[in-house]
Amino acid sequence: MSSSFDRLTFETTDACPHTHARRGRVRLRRGEFETPAFMPVGTQATVKSLTAEDLERLGVRIILANTYHLYQRPGSHVIRDCGGLQRFMGYPGLILTDSGGYQVFSLQPLVRVDDQGARFRSHIDGAVHLFTPESVVEIQEALGSDIMMPLDQPVPWGTSPADARAITDRSDAWAARARAHHLRDGGRRDQALFGIVQGGFTAEGRAASVRRIVDIGFDGYAIGGLSVGEEKSVMFGVLAETAPLLPAHLPRYLMGVGTPADLIRCIALGIDMFDCVLPTRLARNCAAYTSEGRKHLRNAHYTSADVPLDPRCDCPTCQRYPVAYLRHLCMAKEILASRLLTYHNIHYYLRLMERARDAISQCTLPELVSEMEDLYSSPATGSDPVRMGTKRRSLDYH
Amino acid sequence: MSSSFDRLTFETTDACPHTHARRGRVRLRRGEFETPAFMPVGTQATVKSLTAEDLERLGVRIILANTYHLYQRPGSHVIRDCGGLQRFMGYPGLILTDSGGYQVFSLQPLVRVDDQGARFRSHIDGAVHLFTPESVVEIQEALGSDIMMPLDQPVPWGTSPADARAITDRSDAWAARARAHHLRDGGRRDQALFGIVQGGFTAEGRAASVRRIVDIGFDGYAIGGLSVGEEKSVMFGVLAETAPLLPAHLPRYLMGVGTPADLIRCIALGIDMFDCVLPTRLARNCAAYTSEGRKHLRNAHYTSADVPLDPRCDCPTCQRYPVAYLRHLCMAKEILASRLLTYHNIHYYLRLMERARDAISQCTLPELVSEMEDLYSSPATGSDPVRMGTKRRSLDYH
Repeated sequence: MSSSFDRLTFETTDACPHTHARRGRVRLRRGEFETPAFMPVGTQATVKSLTAEDLERLGVRIILANTYHLYQRPGSHVIRDCGGLQRFMGYPGLILTDSGGYQVFSLQPLVRVDDQGARFRSHIDGAVHLFTPESVVEIQEALGSDIMMPLDQPVPWGTSPADARAITDRSDAWAARARAHHLRDGGRRDQALFGIVQGGFTAEGRAASVRRIVDIGFDGYAIGGLSVGEEKSVMFGVLAETAPLLPAHLPRYLMGVGTPADLIRCIALGIDMFDCVLPTRLARNCAAYTSEGRKHLRNAHYTSADVPLDPRCDCPTCQRYPVAYLRHLCMAKEILASRLLTYHNIHYYLRLMERARDAISQCTLPELVSEMEDLYSSPATGSDPVRMGTKRRSLDYH
Repeated sequence: MSSSFDRLTFETTDACPHTHARRGRVRLRRGEFETPAFMPVGTQATVKSLTAEDLERLGVRIILANTYHLYQRPGSHVIRDCGGLQRFMGYPGLILTDSGGYQVFSLQPLVRVDDQGARFRSHIDGAVHLFTPESVVEIQEALGSDIMMPLDQPVPWGTSPADARAITDRSDAWAARARAHHLRDGGRRDQALFGIVQGGFTAEGRAASVRRIVDIGFDGYAIGGLSVGEEKSVMFGVLAETAPLLPAHLPRYLMGVGTPADLIRCIALGIDMFDCVLPTRLARNCAAYTSEGRKHLRNAHYTSADVPLDPRCDCPTCQRYPVAYLRHLCMAKEILASRLLTYHNIHYYLRLMERARDAISQCTLPELVSEMEDLYSSPATGSDPVRMGTKRRSLDYH
């Protein structure tokens, strides 16, 4: 495993005595970040509406970008020729690229899959492309991300146990090929590769996938194929049984989840890394996460409100603008609305991760779990209008 | 005229020996700015895609906002209740509000005009509203802008001389009522009011309007009703005959003009202040003004260009991002494209005004006129795809 340690090290600095949560630090060749960590989603090499300078000011240390989208537009060669994704985006932080597996398979009618890989028709130009475990590693080598993900095949909600096994067998076999290709002579040594656990919605299915993925050996482990339409109780049940099976000395990443309350609950189950479109997508739909619950800026209640969006927030949106102005921008469909609310929501998520890390160190995580469940389940603040897994069901390319 | 001097003073610091250009400084109660000056357009209380902080960093000292739009949405009472437009927008600089006259009359089929004022149907909710010279002053008092404009009626291009006279007679009579209302007991003392010269497209019509508007006496003078479809030679001809008739000791503002080359030419004719949507609108259409001419980022030429948008520009867009990235954002219709290009184009316009001021001081303005005409009339860089006067023909509310 020394090759893994060249690429990524994970140090656990504190552990919660009441839950499975741990606080730690991931070190990569080009930088490091504290965990639990939230990665804002920058599908097309842009966290929608924010500049690279905004990301720096927010304290974002790692973002997610989408292999599927960038491979098609502008093309991975364009990004490689500009010196990689970081230089292309003018962003000096870390970048994780997902494998495109989810995006390919969310286009079910257009995809043909066999053991070799997945053939799909581009949503941009209609051309047919083939993703193989090897080609997806090479695309991400061209992108130059810090953490790569192998081509995987999620098990759709509602799949029979036998089909779930067959799909996962193929996904796990692809993972082995991806890792072999990653470690081939000439493969880049400055990029880590995570394994993705699939296995459907049963403890047995997941456990079998964990065994095989951990046997292959990766620089970190992701849990995929959740938040795709199942009830939250199913998701939390699978997570509770799967997370403890993953090696404790490497980071655990839950893909595509979730709301603030979900994140804290998943941290208590031992998850270290998250990505989700919720804070950015909700911002573009004029909704904000605040210390007073979720606020919908189109609500007429805010028409003349000469108060900050969140009185306890120190982000520039809350420090500079009255909520009446934010509402006006929303009603007038002004670009600036998306930008100011995206900044605020990302700030909220990062601050929440900071609070979670402190709560782990101070042994108060259960209180934070309760606080977030109360805040977001009360009738006053409502539950989320955008269901979990929205990202995992759509392309989100605008 | 001492009341004018309370509200606005204009000091000419340099004059060009070869042209009518002058360099100066406008002082208002809440701030000051150097002339020649360009005012970015913030129709709906936002310079589209830019934050108030961006405006500060750009060195923007004065912007234009639209009375017509803000009166309807969010309503001037909302802005008044938030402490005025500056506080509402979180923007500490100066604000000029136009009168809404142009917007009302650009909706010809929906407007009824008589000596009392103009009745129009809202483009937002279909309700009928009445603008009078007095009500428009009061709306701008509620908005709390630093420079107000009186309700005017532009003469459409192609109007007969007799009709042009009748329209201008009414517009000039409205100007007198606006000024009287502005100076009434209880009127605010911290807002300046400019007169707007109309008179159509003949030297005689313009001269007659100048006489009446100057007789009324304002804190500054605007030339309206140009750049509405006429040939540029007509516009420059009218300007050359009208500008010298305006008092030399007060600022002269040409409304709604224009391209970089137009601005420099109009400065040579004695104009001190400008507003135009071109730099912001072109940015949203993926075009940029640069030291190498106008560039259209959708051009495939830029696909892999790992160079700055403008190698001689020191704005953050040019300092941080390769042009290939800007093109990618344009092709992917990402919000960030508008933002980065808007920032650059406004920076270009402000820097151009700085160069014009220096050229006046250094007696080199004719060289700058030639440079801009060469830069923007060469086949390589092309002429403007968005014609002058676009703003004055549309509502620009998105």
